[in-house]
Amino acid sequence: MPELRQNIATREWVIIATERSRRPAEFSSPPREQRVVPPYSSGCPFCAGNEELSPGASHTVRDTDGRWRVRVLPNKYPALSREGDPAYLEDGTRRWMNGVGIHDVIVEAPEHNLTTALMEPEQLVRVVECYRQLYLSAVQDPRVEQVLLFKNHGAAAGTSLEHPHSQMVATPVVPANIRDRMAHAMNYYDEHRECVFCRMIREELQSGERLLLNTDHFIAFIPYAAFSPFHIWALPKRHIPSFPQIGQEEINDFARLLRNLMLMLYLGLDNPDFNYVIRSLPGAPRRNAFFHWYLSIVPRVSKAAGFELGTGMYINTALPEESAAFLRGVRLDASEGG
Amino acid sequence: MPELRQNIATREWVIIATERSRRPAEFSSPPREQRVVPPYSSGCPFCAGNEELSPGASHTVRDTDGRWRVRVLPNKYPALSREGDPAYLEDGTRRWMNGVGIHDVIVEAPEHNLTTALMEPEQLVRVVECYRQLYLSAVQDPRVEQVLLFKNHGAAAGTSLEHPHSQMVATPVVPANIRDRMAHAMNYYDEHRECVFCRMIREELQSGERLLLNTDHFIAFIPYAAFSPFHIWALPKRHIPSFPQIGQEEINDFARLLRNLMLMLYLGLDNPDFNYVIRSLPGAPRRNAFFHWYLSIVPRVSKAAGFELGTGMYINTALPEESAAFLRGVRLDASEGG
Repeated sequence: MPELRQNIATREWVIIATERSRRPAEFSSPPREQRVVPPYSSGCPFCAGNEELSPGASHTVRDTDGRWRVRVLPNKYPALSREGDPAYLEDGTRRWMNGVGIHDVIVEAPEHNLTTALMEPEQLVRVVECYRQLYLSAVQDPRVEQVLLFKNHGAAAGTSLEHPHSQMVATPVVPANIRDRMAHAMNYYDEHRECVFCRMIREELQSGERLLLNTDHFIAFIPYAAFSPFHIWALPKRHIPSFPQIGQEEINDFARLLRNLMLMLYLGLDNPDFNYVIRSLPGAPRRNAFFHWYLSIVPRVSKAAGFELGTGMYINTALPEESAAFLRGVRLDASEGG
Repeated sequence: MPELRQNIATREWVIIATERSRRPAEFSSPPREQRVVPPYSSGCPFCAGNEELSPGASHTVRDTDGRWRVRVLPNKYPALSREGDPAYLEDGTRRWMNGVGIHDVIVEAPEHNLTTALMEPEQLVRVVECYRQLYLSAVQDPRVEQVLLFKNHGAAAGTSLEHPHSQMVATPVVPANIRDRMAHAMNYYDEHRECVFCRMIREELQSGERLLLNTDHFIAFIPYAAFSPFHIWALPKRHIPSFPQIGQEEINDFARLLRNLMLMLYLGLDNPDFNYVIRSLPGAPRRNAFFHWYLSIVPRVSKAAGFELGTGMYINTALPEESAAFLRGVRLDASEGG
């Protein structure tokens, strides 16, 4: 019989439809055109050597030899405009604002053919440091209410650009979905006088059934109510409401964790398309008892349809405990060099 | 400059990114394999003549000549099980229920090669009557909290079955997303002492900018804050909270409206993949001041990525007023026979 599980942090129910379940290995990406991706692509605006195709870098991280390792660029087709003052108009049921905000691209490496799973942890440290700096700089802008850092990898995840990159969008409103999540987390805190995420961390460490990685500062697991196969949450063990409140040691640890999670997916599911997002407290970093930032990774191995559209409720065809066991079984040693 | 618009009924903000905008005609489906779909397919479990492949019909609508026109079947791979009593378990942050509920398939026609746009209004009347009956029967079940009627058309919309069909899922919980929407509609009512949807209907009729169809009993328009190109809402003009509270005359009118909306998309965008869902008050039909049922149609012409995942906020690359003007310009006469 299928089962329903509720993510008590978000209040979302999911259906785990075990009868429809495929075995974990069957979620592997379909065989693709066997194409060796070159480290340099002549038309790519993000490749080292093509910097004239992507001018206006707002931030550049350089190596000791002076070559750039990470670049931050304004998005060429921004969803929000960096210029202008916020304006708000109301007319009956219509609510309008001009689209001010920030939309940046983080070019994660000079090489065209890298992906998160194949990056050196040192390179990912640079990327995560860059995320932190961008976030802190964005919340200085008085127009900004919410900062979202995210990555789209592959066509099914909504990007056609092959070069490894992630994005930051800073919006002049707190999206309704995030406001609702904040209210749910606050309600949990009111009831239990504890951050719901801190409690989940404790329980996932105790149970171990859905655990993927347990490092000095982070824990990664398949949520009990994962909404899709191999949906992953990674949280700092320390109660940190806002992403940029992490310290340097935590960044180093997070970069290695991110690499290893991505390697599990890359090797276990054959380089699936995926999205990841960093969920963080709205507004500037500050003390907050009920929210806890985390990374959510969603491999694009299933498709939302009318049911999900109509209910916000997902049907997950994989048992989270089985997905976790499968990913834990992926051998990372060879690629990690011991 | 992009703009932000808020749907005051759902509180959701969308970004209308006009700079990224394509012209309406460019949303047409990519050219497909030119294949004439036959009216009968030998392996199809839903085709007339293959009834032994899909046994257990719970409801059959027949023509005067005795041949079936619509059949309701249990889903072969149900997301929820019809058998069993509801059980609820709680263990720390984990909330679990067994997956009881109903998951039916509505076979909309005996012919394999029909689609909503090409159906006679009389056939759609049968389908909508069937929706109504299924809904009323589902809410009799004391385990059922929410009924969702929806349709997936085409691979991008999450179905691989070509034969025209829709689905009903009756869940033993009210999904969090629907609870949040109810709260938002209730808040609007508290502030304004009017159903937010009734007010939208009045305003859309007044403005006409986003209007698609205005019939005796229904109005269809592109919402001011449409979350994707050609996202359509159709609402009864009368304040009706729950879908099965529509009367026969309204059903007849709705069937014709649905056909004409689908024809606009079929002809204007070259038979795009789409989902539609009927949003209705949770639980059994009853009096309710703040909610108003409606049909939401979402052609699958764009893709959600990390930004949408992280915020619940969508980037619509088409201006709703332009999309509406484009669809209004589609000539339906030829196909409608005057």
